[in-house]
This record gives sequence, structure tokens and C-alpha cells, in this order.
Amino acid sequence: MIVSALLTSVGINLALCLLFFTLYSILRKQPSYLNVYSPRSVAAKEELEESNKFNFERLLPTAGWVRRAWQPSEDELLSVTSLDAVVFMRIFIFSLRVFGFAGIVGILVLLPINYLGNQLNRDFDISDLPSKSLDSFSISNVNVGSKWLWVHFCAAYIVTGFVCYLLYYEYSYISSKRIAHFYSSKPQPNQFTVVVRSVPVSSGSSCSETVESFFTENYPSTYLSHSVVRRTNKLQGLTSKAGKLYRKLMRLRTETNTQQRLRRDGCWGLFGRKVDALDYYGKKLDDLEDNVRMEQTSVAGKDVAAAFVSFKSRLGAAVAFHIQQGENPIEWLTERAPEPQDVHWPFFSASFIKRWISKLVVVVAYTALTVLFLIPVVVVQGLTNLNQLETWFPFLTSVLDLTVVSAVITGYLPSLILQLFMSFVPPVMIMLSSLEGYISFSQIQKSACSKMLGFTIWNVFLANTLSGTLLYGFEIFLEPKKIPGILADAVPAQASFFIAYVVTSGWTSLLSSELFRVTRLILSIIKRPFSGKDDEFEAPSIPYHSAIPKVLFFGLLGLTYFFLAPLILPFLVVYCCLGYIIFRNQFLNVYAPKYETDGKFWPTVHNSTIFALVLMHIIAIGMFGLKKVPLASSLTIPLPILTLLFNEYCRKRFLPIFKAYPAECLIKKDREDENDPRISAFYEKLSTAYRDPALMPMHHPRSTDGHSTPLLQAGV
Amino acid sequence: MIVSALLTSVGINLALCLLFFTLYSILRKQPSYLNVYSPRSVAAKEELEESNKFNFERLLPTAGWVRRAWQPSEDELLSVTSLDAVVFMRIFIFSLRVFGFAGIVGILVLLPINYLGNQLNRDFDISDLPSKSLDSFSISNVNVGSKWLWVHFCAAYIVTGFVCYLLYYEYSYISSKRIAHFYSSKPQPNQFTVVVRSVPVSSGSSCSETVESFFTENYPSTYLSHSVVRRTNKLQGLTSKAGKLYRKLMRLRTETNTQQRLRRDGCWGLFGRKVDALDYYGKKLDDLEDNVRMEQTSVAGKDVAAAFVSFKSRLGAAVAFHIQQGENPIEWLTERAPEPQDVHWPFFSASFIKRWISKLVVVVAYTALTVLFLIPVVVVQGLTNLNQLETWFPFLTSVLDLTVVSAVITGYLPSLILQLFMSFVPPVMIMLSSLEGYISFSQIQKSACSKMLGFTIWNVFLANTLSGTLLYGFEIFLEPKKIPGILADAVPAQASFFIAYVVTSGWTSLLSSELFRVTRLILSIIKRPFSGKDDEFEAPSIPYHSAIPKVLFFGLLGLTYFFLAPLILPFLVVYCCLGYIIFRNQFLNVYAPKYETDGKFWPTVHNSTIFALVLMHIIAIGMFGLKKVPLASSLTIPLPILTLLFNEYCRKRFLPIFKAYPAECLIKKDREDENDPRISAFYEKLSTAYRDPALMPMHHPRSTDGHSTPLLQAGV
Repeated sequence: MIVSALLTSVGINLALCLLFFTLYSILRKQPSYLNVYSPRSVAAKEELEESNKFNFERLLPTAGWVRRAWQPSEDELLSVTSLDAVVFMRIFIFSLRVFGFAGIVGILVLLPINYLGNQLNRDFDISDLPSKSLDSFSISNVNVGSKWLWVHFCAAYIVTGFVCYLLYYEYSYISSKRIAHFYSSKPQPNQFTVVVRSVPVSSGSSCSETVESFFTENYPSTYLSHSVVRRTNKLQGLTSKAGKLYRKLMRLRTETNTQQRLRRDGCWGLFGRKVDALDYYGKKLDDLEDNVRMEQTSVAGKDVAAAFVSFKSRLGAAVAFHIQQGENPIEWLTERAPEPQDVHWPFFSASFIKRWISKLVVVVAYTALTVLFLIPVVVVQGLTNLNQLETWFPFLTSVLDLTVVSAVITGYLPSLILQLFMSFVPPVMIMLSSLEGYISFSQIQKSACSKMLGFTIWNVFLANTLSGTLLYGFEIFLEPKKIPGILADAVPAQASFFIAYVVTSGWTSLLSSELFRVTRLILSIIKRPFSGKDDEFEAPSIPYHSAIPKVLFFGLLGLTYFFLAPLILPFLVVYCCLGYIIFRNQFLNVYAPKYETDGKFWPTVHNSTIFALVLMHIIAIGMFGLKKVPLASSLTIPLPILTLLFNEYCRKRFLPIFKAYPAECLIKKDREDENDPRISAFYEKLSTAYRDPALMPMHHPRSTDGHSTPLLQAGV
Repeated sequence: MIVSALLTSVGINLALCLLFFTLYSILRKQPSYLNVYSPRSVAAKEELEESNKFNFERLLPTAGWVRRAWQPSEDELLSVTSLDAVVFMRIFIFSLRVFGFAGIVGILVLLPINYLGNQLNRDFDISDLPSKSLDSFSISNVNVGSKWLWVHFCAAYIVTGFVCYLLYYEYSYISSKRIAHFYSSKPQPNQFTVVVRSVPVSSGSSCSETVESFFTENYPSTYLSHSVVRRTNKLQGLTSKAGKLYRKLMRLRTETNTQQRLRRDGCWGLFGRKVDALDYYGKKLDDLEDNVRMEQTSVAGKDVAAAFVSFKSRLGAAVAFHIQQGENPIEWLTERAPEPQDVHWPFFSASFIKRWISKLVVVVAYTALTVLFLIPVVVVQGLTNLNQLETWFPFLTSVLDLTVVSAVITGYLPSLILQLFMSFVPPVMIMLSSLEGYISFSQIQKSACSKMLGFTIWNVFLANTLSGTLLYGFEIFLEPKKIPGILADAVPAQASFFIAYVVTSGWTSLLSSELFRVTRLILSIIKRPFSGKDDEFEAPSIPYHSAIPKVLFFGLLGLTYFFLAPLILPFLVVYCCLGYIIFRNQFLNVYAPKYETDGKFWPTVHNSTIFALVLMHIIAIGMFGLKKVPLASSLTIPLPILTLLFNEYCRKRFLPIFKAYPAECLIKKDREDENDPRISAFYEKLSTAYRDPALMPMHHPRSTDGHSTPLLQAGV
């Protein structure tokens, strides 16, 4: 890629960004799009000042939201959102610092050195800059054996040191935040509860009795209550169906036109005799509710050998959680309970051995998906070449012959197909993670987040750098000695691709999909005529499992390319600034926290950065080898070792804080509660906090026809 | 090696074994050798029936001891010795079963197939059997591409399945033994105590105050007492010196010849004026004791930021041990306390970060020692060739020219040097492990045991199979794809060497060094004139760190060679039978248990067997590749994967039991104690159990001259 091409690409994307920015500034002020751009205030049913009164200002793009997103301090953000959101924002702050420092080193020191080399082009004439290849700014342009490479060597050491210092600082900062947040928290059910799985139920007794007798005997002073988990998959389906039907019924009732309320009782409402829809659905709902009640009584016997066990103190729960309970280590398995709204109810169906096997299966499936993902993509892309299309759709021939159309199709269709395939990946990862038998959505998301990260690194980074050889790329792991050489050969060649990637996939897609929420906007426009006013509206929660890997991937790009092609860094700095403002805005207006992991995502960020550093070192070792500076190559070897040792130290120093709270904190909090008069009320709440929502009958007034029917809260 | 050579070697070693057996049978009955062959009864000062009365039977070799070693049941053995000894004996039972089964498969099925192949020799004539190479019985003789190799393939699967079944059975058997042993145990100090390290002592207060306030505040109901650890390295040196001097003095006092009591007071007792040794040493001891008292008072201020903290219940100790105590995960580090007599006092000097670094240093040193061990050995062996010796010692020329002498020197000297170097290895491993900062001898021994195992496998197995290329052998780990091929090529060629190794290093050295205790016998004969009657006599404890790796290495040989050269198996079966009887005898008569790990060595045995299986599979994969049966080679690949999965399952199912006792057991035992009237006496004992012996002043009557001097227990 030459400089002018890069500038064109940047120009186009800048224009697109500006367009989205302007559109967002206008649309966010339109009351009809509030549920797209401010769902948090809609869900909270806040009074929106004069939202329905038209004024001219509404049509002007303004940047006031940027100021409002910028202003709140971290503590204010924490009070409005969750610690997870604050930790997420720390990724941007951390990345900005890293790229800022690396950018200064890269642009001011490395870039001139690279440009002054003459490995690629012998003449250096500043006037024909636009037609220069971007490679003249990369390390490829430095002469083989040049002494200037020692500057790159020093830069690698200095930047690694700086990044490690920042990593340490952030880890310690977030650890202290996490503990402070725990100290300031109110008593929460999950702090007092553990999940017990693989309860060894003897044939004579029920699961509930077994759990009760085990814990009253062993923890007479701290045991409070328990609730056994039941297999409710079928019931959940029924209740959600009933909920939907109930909503339909309510909507029909508001319908004044009786003609419209008629429908046929046959297949899909198209055949059969005409009946009043109100009666028809009413009868159907009654049947469903009968079913639900029957299922609820029958389900009571279907224990899953698992229970939520609550204790009177946090330390009591911690004791049950940390110490192996039964003599058999695969029975009485305890785990911290998630927050009640975070429980993933369908998980409970598996015994220890089943869960272990499904974990193995998931690992295999994940590896296969990651490694083989590109094969179908390449195949489908191959099917969409021009000739193929012309054969399939002969009537398109004339259109396809136009240069513009063919350029668009050959240029964009493959990448569109890739994007399409890629968009299916996060849900697949969530599905895989949920198969692993986690007990909470947050754990599933955390596991999916790591999976997505590995997937992205493999399929976007390695697939592009080792393109062509990727299908056999797995082979290089069998000859680890060759890895540095192969990477050093392939990675710098893709620098210009990744700069373009940062601009398009970073800037533009951040603005379009994150800020402008294109998909959601279109859905809302389509859905509007059909949706009733009374629909319950819920603010979405941020999909950490797709958002975090994206940001971390740019971090990886920045760290690996900073000394190969420092030109990428300014673009990454802009990306981080944009991301910082946009995500702050989204956290304040769009995403509502559903559950709180207290920053448990940070270790993933830390590990990913360490991986990026080590990858950078490996490439550096290979690079110095290729450039025939073997001494620099050998002297770089301690760098990854030191980095991994640093990581090991951090694991010991900080990771335990993210796994569980220390006894000191638990005891302090417990002591505070002892003097709290509200604690007995909390205990009462605690004993019912972990009831399966599908099992709770709820009376709900159905209609004006006098009688009220029990309806189930879950689906409604 | 040809068959007749093997038979000769077996014959010689059998004769040697018989000799040792006979000598042992006679010498063990001589009262003067009781401290060599029955130190347990000597230490226990048992009345030995008519031990001093001479009778003729004492000079006849009898095998009664074999019957007496065979007879006791496992429970009887447990009551007389320790669980560790029982677990050690289980290794032999396990190996016997494995080799029995593998031997039947190998000798009855594989051996005929190997022999009937004609890859190596085209004619098969049973008459010239003695001059046949041993290789005709190994897999090397099977024709390339032969269908018979599928029998080997099946044998690999069947034996792996059988070994895994046995591993599971043994693991579960020993786990249950371990728990049963815990239930039947009396209250022991180590069950109620944890070691706390890295206590964050603030400048204003002492370590003792910090520990006291932390635990009384956090565990008011279960905390009992603590004893702070002090830096006593210097003190320990002084006390042991004082102890030695005291013993010397006591011996001198029994001396009746006053002339012998005179000595010179100058350098080494050779110069200066003559003084009465009794007065001389008495004065010296007085000085030393003054020193010790001074050191004791000064040491009181030197805390090491570590303490033994005792609790009122086992669960209390477990809570402190399992849950991270302080907010900072590298402060208030807790660990199970070892038994009081098992504490390795000099360990305490290191902080968390120091210990971490020393662990890293030890890993590096261990790796270097293991990988580079053979270099000095080869160099020294090179120095001892005949010409070199003749140059150094010209007067030996005539002797060295004799064929017999030169044969012995060229044949035995190199292996003698190897043995000499090898004998230094276990102490070095113990030293390395103790540098790692373990708090107990048993942990040091366990860690040294794993180290020795790795060392033996690398230097005896790999060095012999990859001989010559070993120095560059590390390189093959950079090309993992080639490993199976290299191993399959090199390992079968060494079959005859390892058969001879089993016979010499297994049979003969087991009988000579273990049963006959050659070194100890010689030492005792030399020392006898000098040792006094009153010497405290202590029975030795078994050096698990050198005994277990030896047995496990033979297990590895059996598993890797069973399908390559099944001829090795009968020799291993004999080894196991010998080992079973001899070690039972030694446990009953020689080794006294010093401390009890309750079978914590078993996971090492398990892991080693899994390693041997996987090594066997890798060799099989390479072998089938070399023999051009690629399908068998590919179909073997699932075998190591399944084995590793099995291992993973066992880790989950059994390993936790070996790490700590489950809450259920602790609570049951605590409840038993509650009703025990002796528990308050135990608590009293508990609070002083973990005092550093160097800090305890002990009054000891010194002499007949009226006054008694405080003397220190430690060294005495």
C-alpha cells in the first residue's frame, strides 16, 4: 500500500465517522429514538424534559453529549453504573498510556530510522512521499546488519518495561478498587451463599433432606437455609410461552375494533371457523396455565442433586466454599453463588463427570472452530466470484459487467461474507461456554470473552499474516524453533493492512455500530408499527464478551507493530480516545448493568497484554535474526523470560484477590452486620433469594371478566 | 549382547546375591552387628534374648527372617511402622501386578512373535540359541510392514488399560487408607496448627504482638496460642557444638587411664603444654554455654516475621490455612504445620519474594545439573584411560600391562566413576530442595524425590538411549515432531543394556546396599574402637528420596520395554519380589519412622507411572512408523491422550485428599475431642509444641564436681 492510498482510506473513513457523529447528534435528541439511544432513562421511566415538544434545536447536531460523557469522575461513573464498567474504561486509559508512550518512542525515534534506511528503495526524495510504499516507514526498510537496529532493540526493552510498570500499577489499582467496593457494599445474597453440586443423595432420602442434614450437622452455628435446584427447562419454556400469550391478550383487549379481534381457529389462523380472538387466546392461556401448574407439581420431585446453601455470615460461606466438604472430592462440590439475577438456571442438569466431559468436548469444538473457521469462509468467498454469479443469475450479466459493480463485488463481497461469518461467532462462543456448565451468565460471558480473544488473534492476526499457509499453520507449532523466523518474515508485511484495519474496523465500526447502533436503529424502525405501548422495556447490558476482545486485539496490534511499523500508533491513539468517550457515553445512556463481577475481567486484560508483549519479543528475536544482528537476537531472549516471570509474580500478588475475598475483609464486614438491626430482615430475604423464578406462582389479574387467574411472573 | 553373555552376567550376579544373602543371614545374628541390622530394637533398648550367649546356630545361615518379614499383615505393618512405609510397600505390590500381567502378555505372546520374525537373522535354528543376539527377542526382529505388529498394537492398548485400572484402584485404596488413618489418629499438634509467614510487622510493634492481635481479632473463638519463629542458625551451630563437647566429656570421664586424659592445649592438640583434657574441655564447654546463653537472649529480638499459630479445633486451623488471610495475598501466608519433629528450622529466613526467587534459582540449578551432569563424568572418565594412568603413575606400567588388570580398569573404572558421581546426587538434591524454603524435612524429601526421579530418567534412560547425541539432546525438544522417531530408533537398541542394568543395579545392589548395608557395616567396623557405650543410638529413617526414584525407574523400564523387548520382564518380577521381602524386613528391623506424611508420596508414584505409559506410547508411535505400519501409528495417538485424560480425572478424584483433609473428617474428629477429658492437657502441650529446640534451656547434670550446668537439649 502506498501513502496516498492510506490517506484516501483514512479520508473516506473520517468522512464516514463525521457522518455518523452528526447523525447521532441529531437522532439522539429525537424522542422516537430514545429507546435506541437512551434506553437507560427509558427503562427508568425518567421524566424527559420537554421530550415531546418540538423545537428547532433538535435538528441541529451538537456535541454537548461529548462533554457530558467526559465530565463524570470515576467515582460518579461507579455509582451510576458498575465496577465492571469502570474496569472496562480502565482498558482504554491503560491503552492510551501505552500507545502514547510507544507512539512517542515509535514516531520520534524509530520512524526516522526506518525511513532513512535504504533496504527497499535506494533514493530518498521527500517530494514523492505520497507514492512511497508504507513499507519505507517500517523496519523492513532498515538495512541488513545496520547498527541502527540496536535502537529498536533498546526500544523493545524500554517499552516492555514501561508496559509492565503500567500493568502492575493497573492491577494494583483495580485490586484496591475491588476491595473498596466490597467494603462499601450492602449485604448481598451472593456473599452469604454457596452453590453445592453433586450432592450424594442416598436412595432413601431426598436431596433437600441430605443437604439439610449435612449442613446442620457440620455447620450448626452458621448454616441458615437452602433451596434445592430442580430441573425446570420444560417449565421455563411453558412459562415464557404463557407470558407471551398474556401480553398478546392484553394488547388485543385494548383493540377497539371488534372485527379485527376475529380470527380463524385452524392452522395458523387461516382456516376453520371464525372465533373471537379474545376468547380463543383466553382459552389457550387457560390450557397453558393448567399445564404449568401440573408441571410445577411434577417438577418438585425432579431434584438435580444441587442446592443453594445460605449461611449466616460471609465467613461461613467462605469456609464451605474454600474447604473440600465431602470425603470424596468430586461430591459436595461447592462454588461461590452468583447474584440471584445472574444465575443461569438451565445449567444444573449435569453431574461432575458429565460436566467434565462436556468441558472437554467444548475445548475440542472450540479448537476445531477456531482453527478451521476460515475454510468455509474461503469456500463461500470462492463461490461468489463474478463468473460464478453470472452462471447462477444470468439476468445480472449486464449489471455485473459494469466496472463499478464488479469492483464493489470483488472488493467488498468477500469481506462482507467474512464479516457475516464473524458476526455469528460471539453467540457461538456464548453457546459453547454455556455448555461448559457454568452457573452464572457472568462466568459464561467471561469464558466466552477469553474464547473470542483467542479466536480473534488466530483468525484475524495469524490468518492474515500467515495467509495461505494458515491451513497448515498448525504445523509450525510442531517446530517451535522456526516460529520467530516465520513470524518476523510475515508480520511486518501486513503492517499496511492492519493500519487500514484500525481505521475501518476500529474507528468507523466503533462509531457506526457502537455509538450509532445501526442494527438496533433499523430494528426499532421496522418494529415500531407492531410494538405496543405497554411493552416492558429493558435496557440492554453491554456484551463484554465481544467488546473486550475487540479492544484487546487493537492493544495486541499496537504492541506487536510498535517497533515494526510505528505508523500504526497514531491511529490507535485516536481509536482509544474515540472509544473512551463513546463507551463512557454508552455506559451513561445505553447499557444498564445486569450483574456485577467486581472487575473479574481484568485478569483477562492483563494476560492478553502479556501475550502481546511475548509475541512482540518473539517477532523481535526473529527480526534481528533476519536482519543479521545475531547478538541483538540472543540478547532479546531474556526479555520474554523476564516478562513471563513478571506475569508469574503478578499472578501471585494480585490474582487471588480476583478469585475470592480474603478472610480479613469477610470478618470485618460480618462484624459490621452484627450490629445492624436490618440483618434479620436480610436473612429472611436471603432464604428465598435463590428460588427458581419458574417455580414461583404469581397471581395476576387477567381480565375484566371478574376472575383472576394465577399467572407466572417469569415470562411476563 | 548375545544370549550366553546375558546368562553369564545373570549367573555372576546370582552368585553375588546368594553370597550377600548368606552373609546377611549369619551376620544379622551376631550381637555386635545388631546396630547395623536391627537398629530399631537397639534404639528401643529391647531385651534381646540370649544375645550375648554364644551358640552354634548363630553361625549357620537361616532364612527365618524371610518368613518373619513375609508374615505381618498390612495392618500390623502399619501399627509397627508408618503409613508411608505401607505406601512404599504398595509400590512393590503395584509393580508386581503390572509386571506380572505385562510379563504374561510379553513372554507368551510378543516374545514368540518377535523371535519368529526374520528382520535381523534369516535362519531360525533353535540349536544355536546361546550365540543368538538378544535383539532377536526384541521388536527389532519383526519384519517391516508385518501384520504381526498389530498384536503389539493390541498389547499396548490392553496393558495400558490394565495399568490404568490398577492405578485407579491403588489411588483409591491409598486414599481410603489415608482417611482411615486420620480418623484413627490421636490429636496431634500439626493438625491444630498452621504456619504463618510474611507477617506484615509494622515498625511500632513486634511480630508476636501483630500475630496475637490479628488472630484474636479475627478468630476469637478458635485461636489458641502462637509461637514466633526466631533466627537461630548461629545458635543451632553453637548448641550442636556444645552437645558434641558434652558427649566427649562424658566419654572422657569414663576413661580410667589418667595418662590418656592429658592433651596439649595448642593447635589440634599437638603443641603447647600438657593439661588434663577433662579440665580443658570442661572450660571450653563453659565458654560455649555462656555463648549460647548470650545468643539466646540476643536472638529473642530477631523475629523472622513467621509464627506457628495453634487453634482449638482442626477446622479452625483449616480455615486459616485454606482462606487467604490478609488483603495482600503475599502477606499472612498460611501453610499446614508439619509435625514438630519434622520442622526444618533454618528455613524461616526468607520473605515471600526471596523464597520465590530462590525457587527460581533452584529450578535453573536443577535443570543445569540434570542436563549437564554427564559432561564432567565423561571428562573424568576420559582422564582415566590406560595411557593417561601410565603417564601419571609410571611405576604402575608393569601392572597395567596385565590383561586382567587392564580389562578391569577399562571395564569398571568408568562405571565406578559414574557410580561415585551418582552417589553425590541425592544429597545435592536434598540441598537444592531445602534451598526452596520448605518448612519441613518431609516436604524437602518429597521434592527431592521428584527431582531425583527426573534426574534418573534423564541421565540413565535418555543418556544411554541417545548416547553421544545427548549433549545436543536438548535440541530435540525444539522439534517435537521428530521425538517419536528418534526414541523408537534408539530405545530398543539399548534393551540388552537395561536387562543387564536390572540384574546388576537392581538385584545385586538391592541385596548389597539395602539388605547387607555394606557402607554402614564398614563404617561400624571402623568406628567400633572409638565409640563409647553410652552414645545415644538412633535408628535411621529410610531415605525415600533415593529409594522411591530407584523403584520407579525400574517401573519405567518395565513399561517402556514390555512391548519392545519383553525379555526384561521376568528379571523385573524377580526384582520386585526381592524388593518386597527385603524392604519389609528393613522396615521391621532397620528403619524407624521419623515423621509421617500419611502417604503423600503416592501422587509422585502415580505421575511417574503415567509418564512411563505416555513415553511407551510415544515410542510405540515412532516404532510403528519405522516399521511402516502408519495406520497402527496413527491409531496409537489416542492412547496417550486417553491416558492423560485418565490422569486428569484421577487428579480431580484423588489428589485433593492428599493435599488436605476434607471438612467432614475434620469436623467429625473435632466433635470426638469435645467429649474427651484429655483435650485440655493436649491444649497445654500444644502451646509449647512448636518452640525452637535451640531456644529451650535444659538443665543437665554435668559432672561429679557438684554443680550442674544448663545444657541444651538440641545437640545432646
